[in-house]
Amino acid sequence: PQSFHLVILGGDGIGPEVCDQSVRLLEIMQPHLDGVEFQLDRHSVGVGEYQRSGEALPQSAYDACLASDAVLLGAMGLPNVRYPNGKEIAPQLDLRERLQLYGGVRPIRLYHEADTPLKGHGPGEIDFVLVRESTEGLFYGRDAIADLEADEATNLLRITRSASERVCRLAFETARRRDGKKTVTLIDKANVLSSMVYFRHVFDEVAKEFLDIKAEHVYVDAAALFLVRRPQDFDVMVTENMFGDILSDLAAGLVGGMGMAPSGDIGDDAAVFQPSHGSAPDIAGQSIANPIAMHLSTAMMLEWLDHPETRRAADALNAAIADVLSDPTQRTADMGGNLSTVEITDKIAERL
Amino acid sequence: PQSFHLVILGGDGIGPEVCDQSVRLLEIMQPHLDGVEFQLDRHSVGVGEYQRSGEALPQSAYDACLASDAVLLGAMGLPNVRYPNGKEIAPQLDLRERLQLYGGVRPIRLYHEADTPLKGHGPGEIDFVLVRESTEGLFYGRDAIADLEADEATNLLRITRSASERVCRLAFETARRRDGKKTVTLIDKANVLSSMVYFRHVFDEVAKEFLDIKAEHVYVDAAALFLVRRPQDFDVMVTENMFGDILSDLAAGLVGGMGMAPSGDIGDDAAVFQPSHGSAPDIAGQSIANPIAMHLSTAMMLEWLDHPETRRAADALNAAIADVLSDPTQRTADMGGNLSTVEITDKIAERL
Ligand SMILES: CC(C)[C@H](C(=O)O)[C@@H](O)C(=O)O
Ligand SMILES: CC(C)[C@H](C(=O)O)[C@@H](O)C(=O)O
Repeated sequence: PQSFHLVILGGDGIGPEVCDQSVRLLEIMQPHLDGVEFQLDRHSVGVGEYQRSGEALPQSAYDACLASDAVLLGAMGLPNVRYPNGKEIAPQLDLRERLQLYGGVRPIRLYHEADTPLKGHGPGEIDFVLVRESTEGLFYGRDAIADLEADEATNLLRITRSASERVCRLAFETARRRDGKKTVTLIDKANVLSSMVYFRHVFDEVAKEFLDIKAEHVYVDAAALFLVRRPQDFDVMVTENMFGDILSDLAAGLVGGMGMAPSGDIGDDAAVFQPSHGSAPDIAGQSIANPIAMHLSTAMMLEWLDHPETRRAADALNAAIADVLSDPTQRTADMGGNLSTVEITDKIAERL
Repeated sequence: PQSFHLVILGGDGIGPEVCDQSVRLLEIMQPHLDGVEFQLDRHSVGVGEYQRSGEALPQSAYDACLASDAVLLGAMGLPNVRYPNGKEIAPQLDLRERLQLYGGVRPIRLYHEADTPLKGHGPGEIDFVLVRESTEGLFYGRDAIADLEADEATNLLRITRSASERVCRLAFETARRRDGKKTVTLIDKANVLSSMVYFRHVFDEVAKEFLDIKAEHVYVDAAALFLVRRPQDFDVMVTENMFGDILSDLAAGLVGGMGMAPSGDIGDDAAVFQPSHGSAPDIAGQSIANPIAMHLSTAMMLEWLDHPETRRAADALNAAIADVLSDPTQRTADMGGNLSTVEITDKIAERL
């Protein structure tokens, strides 16, 4: 059988409890997959691990990620715990940078009209993927430390050809694979920023490699407006790190919030799948966290493993989730429901 | 009588036609204002003027703005017309920078539930002001020219103490004057960017001058999500230039689009009031443009002139607009209605 080495990183706050539920679903599915074996390799990472060992991302965990077929991550970070220099501990950013996970793939899909704050959108009528460049852009400057006594502070937004090419290619490939409008929309600010003129230039070059896919440009301010007024028009969007950070949260807000938004951080040597939400320590340990984003991320991982059986499993998991969510009373507390983390997972498991 | 020197800049595209309608309203109100006289001083600016004279913002127009009590501007810019070096012509950015119009004040108010794409919000239930720093931030780098053959392109995000202090003070003063939650929310990304740690530090210092106003912080990604899920929670937001550009368009989208979003660009030596929308050359000359944002900007100007009679006029104009908009069939084409630019202005004029 083909064995997949999956690294499981529960992390902080609600991370471990939602991650455990996804592992439970993996274990339920595994016996039904022909010739496929999951080898689960758990590691402790995050701010809790930093407090224990002094390292949020121990070398052994990092090495395991690099050697793995895929990584499943709960959530990392805890407000109020900082490095001695005052910086927040954000090991997910370290992971993205060190593993060069350049493509932050964030699918946005509406499962029931009750879940969206927008009028007039039914199931599947919001359905697009935002691809966020995740190794540079304005986040390039994140290692700087502010001098609070100085007269000014700066950060550099950096766009390189190589990083732009690879993330644009990923966006076009995503559009090609999806059953959508076969369109990639570059979100930029080329009317004002030279780095964005450059980004647009590289995007247009890459677009020539994908003549079957329509390429278009929208300014980031207009994109924010379009997302609330006609989100149904988008298929695949690709954008700079900071813009992607903002727009992906906005987009998650359109389909039920961060608890509904899965993500895959994709690189050439590794891939990390995790919900877009944070560690929410205020609700940790109560089994009230919404595990849907985690389960959807797990389905993304199964599809990404790209074996016929894991793809079948991904389809089955997505279908089971969609079926549960088709009844708007089947929700966790963040969405006004009363199912626990385990209960809503049980309902998914029943359908697998 | 007190004479106010008002510079009128129609600009490009639909700019002149919406601006003319606001001037008409000013002329209707003027005879009813006791001891107040408007001296209207028209100048040609924008891309059309650039094509005629080689200068988008002629020195005489600039001098008039600087000497004026306030500037009323329609819209400037035309896609496809560029400087020889390929840069877009954005004279509104030049105005902001040269006149040091540091505070981009963008009020967002819902007049009728039919105007919002969000469920469950009635008139006045979305009502906040976004204050966008408008002289630096990521726009600081806008003079750079991209070298498309290079391996990378960069822009600098710059936050100075002096610009941050003045824009934060403006935000707190706005919250103090408003009949709202008496809260200023700083929108930053202090968990990642040192410039934002710095911005937050200056904001916190300024907050100590306004102990009657609550000060809070929200990360920009979370703010984008909150704007779609609970916009009613905001009173006054203050943020960096690029973040403000994105969030203000998003916010305009919540109350009917750019045609509903007024703005004031406020400096210590000048102030420019203009709709947030652009010049929309595709619909220019047809009298179908929505003049509401222009009229609301005019009301902002009247209030800003800060004379008892102009404040009274501002209240009257705002009330007349609100009364017209209380009937959701009274709309221009952009909002699904069939009133012309002139007709909807007539309805406002009738109520003055
Ligand atoms: C937690 C934070 C550092 C992170 C980011 O800004 O990238 C998060 O918002 C995200 O979107 O993954
Ligand atoms: C037209 C453009 C340069 C401008 C900006 O980016 O500031 C506009 O979007 C705005 O919000 O006033």
